[in-house]
Amino acid sequence: MSQYRVLIDAPDKKGLVYNISSIFYHNDLNILSNQEFVDNEHGKFFMRSVVEGDIDQSELLKKLNNISSDTVNIKVIAPRKKDIVIMVTKESHALGDILMRYEAGELDINIVGVISNYNNLQNLVKKFNIRFYHVSHENLTREAHEAKILEILSQYQQLDYIVLAKYMRILTSNFIESYHNKIINIHHSFLPAFIGANPYKQAYERGVKIIGATAHFVNEVLDNGPIIAQDVKHIDHALTWMDMQRFGRDIEKVVLSRALSLAIEDKIFVNANKTVIL
Amino acid sequence: MSQYRVLIDAPDKKGLVYNISSIFYHNDLNILSNQEFVDNEHGKFFMRSVVEGDIDQSELLKKLNNISSDTVNIKVIAPRKKDIVIMVTKESHALGDILMRYEAGELDINIVGVISNYNNLQNLVKKFNIRFYHVSHENLTREAHEAKILEILSQYQQLDYIVLAKYMRILTSNFIESYHNKIINIHHSFLPAFIGANPYKQAYERGVKIIGATAHFVNEVLDNGPIIAQDVKHIDHALTWMDMQRFGRDIEKVVLSRALSLAIEDKIFVNANKTVIL
Amino acid sequence: MSQYRVLIDAPDKKGLVYNISSIFYHNDLNILSNQEFVDNEHGKFFMRSVVEGDIDQSELLKKLNNISSDTVNIKVIAPRKKDIVIMVTKESHALGDILMRYEAGELDINIVGVISNYNNLQNLVKKFNIRFYHVSHENLTREAHEAKILEILSQYQQLDYIVLAKYMRILTSNFIESYHNKIINIHHSFLPAFIGANPYKQAYERGVKIIGATAHFVNEVLDNGPIIAQDVKHIDHALTWMDMQRFGRDIEKVVLSRALSLAIEDKIFVNANKTVIL
Amino acid sequence: MSQYRVLIDAPDKKGLVYNISSIFYHNDLNILSNQEFVDNEHGKFFMRSVVEGDIDQSELLKKLNNISSDTVNIKVIAPRKKDIVIMVTKESHALGDILMRYEAGELDINIVGVISNYNNLQNLVKKFNIRFYHVSHENLTREAHEAKILEILSQYQQLDYIVLAKYMRILTSNFIESYHNKIINIHHSFLPAFIGANPYKQAYERGVKIIGATAHFVNEVLDNGPIIAQDVKHIDHALTWMDMQRFGRDIEKVVLSRALSLAIEDKIFVNANKTVIL
Repeated sequence: MSQYRVLIDAPDKKGLVYNISSIFYHNDLNILSNQEFVDNEHGKFFMRSVVEGDIDQSELLKKLNNISSDTVNIKVIAPRKKDIVIMVTKESHALGDILMRYEAGELDINIVGVISNYNNLQNLVKKFNIRFYHVSHENLTREAHEAKILEILSQYQQLDYIVLAKYMRILTSNFIESYHNKIINIHHSFLPAFIGANPYKQAYERGVKIIGATAHFVNEVLDNGPIIAQDVKHIDHALTWMDMQRFGRDIEKVVLSRALSLAIEDKIFVNANKTVIL
Repeated sequence: MSQYRVLIDAPDKKGLVYNISSIFYHNDLNILSNQEFVDNEHGKFFMRSVVEGDIDQSELLKKLNNISSDTVNIKVIAPRKKDIVIMVTKESHALGDILMRYEAGELDINIVGVISNYNNLQNLVKKFNIRFYHVSHENLTREAHEAKILEILSQYQQLDYIVLAKYMRILTSNFIESYHNKIINIHHSFLPAFIGANPYKQAYERGVKIIGATAHFVNEVLDNGPIIAQDVKHIDHALTWMDMQRFGRDIEKVVLSRALSLAIEDKIFVNANKTVIL
Repeated sequence: MSQYRVLIDAPDKKGLVYNISSIFYHNDLNILSNQEFVDNEHGKFFMRSVVEGDIDQSELLKKLNNISSDTVNIKVIAPRKKDIVIMVTKESHALGDILMRYEAGELDINIVGVISNYNNLQNLVKKFNIRFYHVSHENLTREAHEAKILEILSQYQQLDYIVLAKYMRILTSNFIESYHNKIINIHHSFLPAFIGANPYKQAYERGVKIIGATAHFVNEVLDNGPIIAQDVKHIDHALTWMDMQRFGRDIEKVVLSRALSLAIEDKIFVNANKTVIL
Repeated sequence: MSQYRVLIDAPDKKGLVYNISSIFYHNDLNILSNQEFVDNEHGKFFMRSVVEGDIDQSELLKKLNNISSDTVNIKVIAPRKKDIVIMVTKESHALGDILMRYEAGELDINIVGVISNYNNLQNLVKKFNIRFYHVSHENLTREAHEAKILEILSQYQQLDYIVLAKYMRILTSNFIESYHNKIINIHHSFLPAFIGANPYKQAYERGVKIIGATAHFVNEVLDNGPIIAQDVKHIDHALTWMDMQRFGRDIEKVVLSRALSLAIEDKIFVNANKTVIL
């Protein structure tokens, strides 16, 4: 018996559920879970089913692809460990949280490498027997620095996700386009508030009563990609912005790991500039 | 074009989704939204679909009932205002919140009456042109008191829900059985903590750092029915139990109105002693 | 025995607590509660004490004023009902929440009037025997419209707060300056995100996973005044912006009432563009 | 210049604040922060001041001790790294979270050792160059097993806190009394709900809509000690109890680390069976 995640992203149309469930039924597939969402505004249909049965993966995909001549996007995924690269700068909390979950076997991932523009996290990464690449940005143009990183990444053909676990440099459009909807960033504010540098300082100066974090796919506009997960925490006037930073780290790491977990379970659909989580 | 809510609660079985969606498809029904849940532990399947089309309500029900010889529980509901009775004791906040939503047309309900064992809320209820029944419990046995209430309720044949908006008396099994899974109570704690009387005082004495509220269907065991909605709020040592009570009211009223809103949209399934919200 | 709230807002300086507590001690005042905050960044000291004793209000103020030649801002307040005016447009939830608390005696206020640029809330307000002023803005310049409102407000000499309970018009600087730090607004987003019109629509389009509300004092820059209280709620992709608006109302009303409650208990200090809540 | 944390826990009495601030003032101490709380129900006064000045620690303590003949509990603490021992069973998340913060220098602690009744976390602990003690409970009475642990602990004379980071065995009264108000436990439910074993399974069976965690000092009654911190997360019917366990880990680790952080900053006072956090 094989288990598959069937992901469908299509123009909404009468009969879709019927046609899909018909294929499941006539191929003797058991539906373990099934979520659907119709975006009525844009006429879009999203579906994630977990099915179990004897059919071959490519066979199932072929049958599903026959149901419509439309531009339907269908994936049949056999669960497997996802290959990820983590990019960091100097802070260890978001990286550390992923490393600990990895060590505990909680996340279905292979961390194929950690890339940083500093080397202070090298010792931490080495403890977990993971390859660490120190790619300093000093004396390099942004493009030259990214070229070095892209070269490292190019070794990993099947890379599923790049996780920016507090990577504090802005990526070029070229880089982002190479990994479209595969780069997950954690931003240390409840977006769209406090875009850009020093969000806790911005938050402190604005005098907000909550702080937060946002995990999102990276697109060409800074801190503007599809949001995957967000959370906040109440604060009061007594916190300095250093305190905010400290408390904020707990939100950041949990939100980023949550987003990564959704990604590796193939639960995230990108719908224009938003996500649908099924 | 008519719109229906189709609710299915059945033993899980291969082909259910296929058979149901087949009926929708072949009767030219458009699926506006569709949620499913499989309780693998108990082999149960739950589904709530909102469909739109030209078919007659009883016709659709008949066709759906043909799909299985099993003990399948299928409902086809045409959206309509639900008839509710609210029962209260002395506090106005939960009642007031429902009255305000009612006045604003936010809830699809008719409040056919408010019953209280005191009369201090009579003036408030009258402002909204709703019938108020004062049924004092003084000098009456529990049974005799309830008999009077049941007599009032018996006038309303189509009563959908009885909302206990801080009704501070314990109902007998007899009363509860008469309105099985139709009585929604708000309990002023995060159940199962602080069952019974004075939960804020219990919370104060235990020194908890959160307070909360729970909306649930009432069953024979005190504060033990299927939970519909819960929420909490952080507190600190500085609160007296009177402060807790005061802050708690905001949670209570929002949680109760949320549960009522789910009920009137036919989104709640009872699954053994739990709820499935679709 | 009289009870006073002593509020001190001063440049931070060694000996302040000593000098103040010395006055309390030597005048036989009992300290019921005492909160302090030092803003080290701006060298500011804030203190709120609730004291009880036999001294006269003006006498206590005089003694406290003697402790420093600095620009110390000291208030001695005897608790009393605050006079408030509520301004609304068409939505009833935030107004209704205050009315219900008022009716229940939960808030220590007199609602001296409700002003609206529409008349659809007149019936609701009348139920509570509160004066309703309909001041249509039609065919009037902003200034002319505000002049009419200011004339109404001018009747109430001791007005403590103006509560904008979803008043959907932008006030002029002239209006705002007349009631400096006395106008409390509820904005239907977690500021500083989604400033201006239609925040839920903005939120929907951005695809956020939380929605929120912010109560703040109104200053000359739109949605930029000192924040008093904020809260948020998790949402998912399935909500339309109308749903967001509906769920958001529960946050708005609770956050606004919370801010009003802090204001009438004299717990809010304005510190530059922020609040200190003691 | 030295910095001290002054902690006072005393019967409430007129003049306390005056007398204490008088000592601060006349010894030329600068007050960096000051929090007070009066428990009016029990007539108790709590105060935590951070002061800075030239005075000697024992000198300051002596002067403060002179202010009252009552049973006043006064501590003058010079900030230093606290010595802690962590006890675990098999799960790594709560331990790992503390290890990562320790590695990042975020917590002002020395982890002098980790004790476990299993050895599967040995490799993880060793990565961080921390001593790991494997003390199997197999074939030992509870008393005999604890005797071995107590022997290890006895090496560390200045032990400040024992952190039970998912240590899944019940401690005897003898053990608990040896470290009165020094043992911090994380319980994986929002206490007082779901005391004892398998709280997530209990939560699943009760059908709650929130899960949570509680950090508390351990006393003689199971899961009944003074609560330091709690948090919860909303869940729905779709979670199995294994899912709850997985999501719950994020709450557990953050709540435990939060409690530990409060403890090492000397912010927790125990007031009967509750905590006051200043």
